[in-house]
Amino acid sequence: MLIKNIDIIRADGTLVNGMNVAVKDGKFAYIGKEMPEGYWGEVLDGKGRVLIPGLINTHTHVPMTLMRGYGDDMPLDRWLFDRIFPFEDKLSAEDVYWGSMLGIAEMLASGTTSFSDMYYFCGSIAKAVIESGIKANIGRGVSCFDETKKFADLPAYSEMLELVKSYHKYDGGRVLIDAAPHSEYTTRPDILADIAEFAAANSLRVQVHLSETQKEHLECVGRHGKTPAKVMEDSGLFDFPVTAAHCVWLSDIDVEILAKHKVFVAHCPQSNLKLASGIARVGYMRQQGVSVTIGTDSAASNNNLDMFEEMRTASLLAKGVTLDPCALPANEIVYMATRAGALAQGRKDTGDIAEGYAADFVILNTNRISMTPSHNPLSNIVYSASGADVETTAVNGRILYHKGEFLTIDIERVLHEVRAHVKFLLDK
Amino acid sequence: MLIKNIDIIRADGTLVNGMNVAVKDGKFAYIGKEMPEGYWGEVLDGKGRVLIPGLINTHTHVPMTLMRGYGDDMPLDRWLFDRIFPFEDKLSAEDVYWGSMLGIAEMLASGTTSFSDMYYFCGSIAKAVIESGIKANIGRGVSCFDETKKFADLPAYSEMLELVKSYHKYDGGRVLIDAAPHSEYTTRPDILADIAEFAAANSLRVQVHLSETQKEHLECVGRHGKTPAKVMEDSGLFDFPVTAAHCVWLSDIDVEILAKHKVFVAHCPQSNLKLASGIARVGYMRQQGVSVTIGTDSAASNNNLDMFEEMRTASLLAKGVTLDPCALPANEIVYMATRAGALAQGRKDTGDIAEGYAADFVILNTNRISMTPSHNPLSNIVYSASGADVETTAVNGRILYHKGEFLTIDIERVLHEVRAHVKFLLDK
Repeated sequence: MLIKNIDIIRADGTLVNGMNVAVKDGKFAYIGKEMPEGYWGEVLDGKGRVLIPGLINTHTHVPMTLMRGYGDDMPLDRWLFDRIFPFEDKLSAEDVYWGSMLGIAEMLASGTTSFSDMYYFCGSIAKAVIESGIKANIGRGVSCFDETKKFADLPAYSEMLELVKSYHKYDGGRVLIDAAPHSEYTTRPDILADIAEFAAANSLRVQVHLSETQKEHLECVGRHGKTPAKVMEDSGLFDFPVTAAHCVWLSDIDVEILAKHKVFVAHCPQSNLKLASGIARVGYMRQQGVSVTIGTDSAASNNNLDMFEEMRTASLLAKGVTLDPCALPANEIVYMATRAGALAQGRKDTGDIAEGYAADFVILNTNRISMTPSHNPLSNIVYSASGADVETTAVNGRILYHKGEFLTIDIERVLHEVRAHVKFLLDK
Repeated sequence: MLIKNIDIIRADGTLVNGMNVAVKDGKFAYIGKEMPEGYWGEVLDGKGRVLIPGLINTHTHVPMTLMRGYGDDMPLDRWLFDRIFPFEDKLSAEDVYWGSMLGIAEMLASGTTSFSDMYYFCGSIAKAVIESGIKANIGRGVSCFDETKKFADLPAYSEMLELVKSYHKYDGGRVLIDAAPHSEYTTRPDILADIAEFAAANSLRVQVHLSETQKEHLECVGRHGKTPAKVMEDSGLFDFPVTAAHCVWLSDIDVEILAKHKVFVAHCPQSNLKLASGIARVGYMRQQGVSVTIGTDSAASNNNLDMFEEMRTASLLAKGVTLDPCALPANEIVYMATRAGALAQGRKDTGDIAEGYAADFVILNTNRISMTPSHNPLSNIVYSASGADVETTAVNGRILYHKGEFLTIDIERVLHEVRAHVKFLLDK
């Protein structure tokens, strides 16, 4: 594939005008002013377009699109116990498949090329990922409320074994399986330690929820005499590559722990606001050397999976809370949503527009109202654009979404199946 | 016009399913389950659609779309003095016309049917409003830095006279002229008093910026020994119907003053965050009986004019800051963005889907990813949808935007003219 004469915004926010971009074997083979030699099966004209790295959503629960708008404006306990948990109790593998397809379609249409997920029925998620062509790190969430059970006794354990066998590194690593202890408050230190061992034995990365709410943070201190971050460090979990979602209530010492162990943070500002969890201290964490990435969390608490909105909210919130209009500028936000996310997922050759990197990219049409005038395309992308401005989304050089059409997903069928499955679940 | 079998969300958030809606002479003539008799020039099928009141943007500076992305991530002083003011110095009436057209197109495409504006070259704004078919309250911003000048000596005074004569109540009140002292810090108490008198003499409403930044608030206290709200009250400005934009730094007593005088607040959360002004205490103001509406502020500090985003940010921010997930629920947000806005603009028969009201409405397609599943269409609208989900926008029963097409605006020409005018301004 050849993209001719396109402006590029790189992961660090640098703008380069009028480049020719060649894609071969799923990677960027050439990026420069010259016209590369060769025969190109597909040629895209980049005039009036801007090319950016595919966005990386480092924390979501994609099947929960089924619960979009199912419980809003409710106290957290009622939301969980009256809505989310009873609904989830009824879910089947097929429900999860269709919910995943809806969420993946939503992400592709809004410029996300890779996501990190924590849920169950992960085979269904993997199937949707494989069929759709998107990239994902999939983690089977592990919780345990039974004192008598060890990690190896849990159904999640055997499911994880099966997932690793069937899907880990599938399609050249497009699918990765992560270990995913749900959180401190839904597990125990020994289970965290066992999961860490499992991750080590299978060379897996780790996803976990960390200090999302004040209640969780304080109750942990009450229970263990130490913070959730310290419990995780002491269990050995942080000796492996970890992405910790939320991190709203970290103490200064917790932040030091995360920095020391190179734990990535998945900042989910819209979900944290909507569930009234609070506002993560992103500026402080970054100052202390923690790499912060961006996630949407699920459509049950967001309520969409548009990373453009999430980028904007992350930046605006940082400015508003610190009263510093220069906080989290557009170039840093783009880095967080692309390259930093790729590194959190353990995808070393992903998340930038550079030769040799995976050709995961997004093309935006700049001849749109939200992108006009074009004083600064980077500003327009972070502060004005929305997912609706995405014209093309490609993963490993394969176009998956183009001008409103999905190339790998029958979207009308997905919308129909989701409605039918939700109706069936509610009637159950 | 007849809209058949459509679900309606009213200004108070109530959902009514499967209604037939007849529009005659620019007003809702019938809303009910029966099929109204008559001959209908235009029939819309409401299946898979939801009808909501047109959104009302109570604070913007629409020509500033010309400065979208022109200065971001900068300290406020540098933003103003290095970017905005020098750019504005070069503006012509024609520049303002094209910038207004771009902003109006952006608003119509994202479901806004009426806006309140404060700028200069207001004849150009009025021309764009008249041609496009949108509603607007237009105020010629008044500032005065010359101690020797009185209100009647200012060019703004004669311009206001001219505006009132030419445009006030134009087209059955579609265009209204407001009096618009810029703020306390850019005027003087005697000028505020004179403007109040001018408003009284001409039966105008008032728009003003109030306590947007801490600096403005504190410097006023230093200068006058009282807060900006108190200065305005003492000058008599609050004896007339006023919409005060921002109100981030109001004291408790200021809020009492606003409640007492029934001053409307235009809450602009995204601009307040982006310029690092702070976060307005919306919950507190509403508790104290102040009517709060929603505005985007200009594209120089937002950087788009999408009221769906603004509704969402207003709600999420209120929840996140108060740590109450029930704060500013979806139904209250919709009221703020519709009926409350209409009342702030002095448009008594506007801002709801009700018989006898102006037929200013928006139709959303619910067969879209962001609106699926449809557990709760109201939630989807506030927490998931974006302007891109708008299918139809109508003002006074006249469709102005439908399925991506503008009926009154040549959008390709507008995009072209804006680019050309911006290039010319930058080269000046």
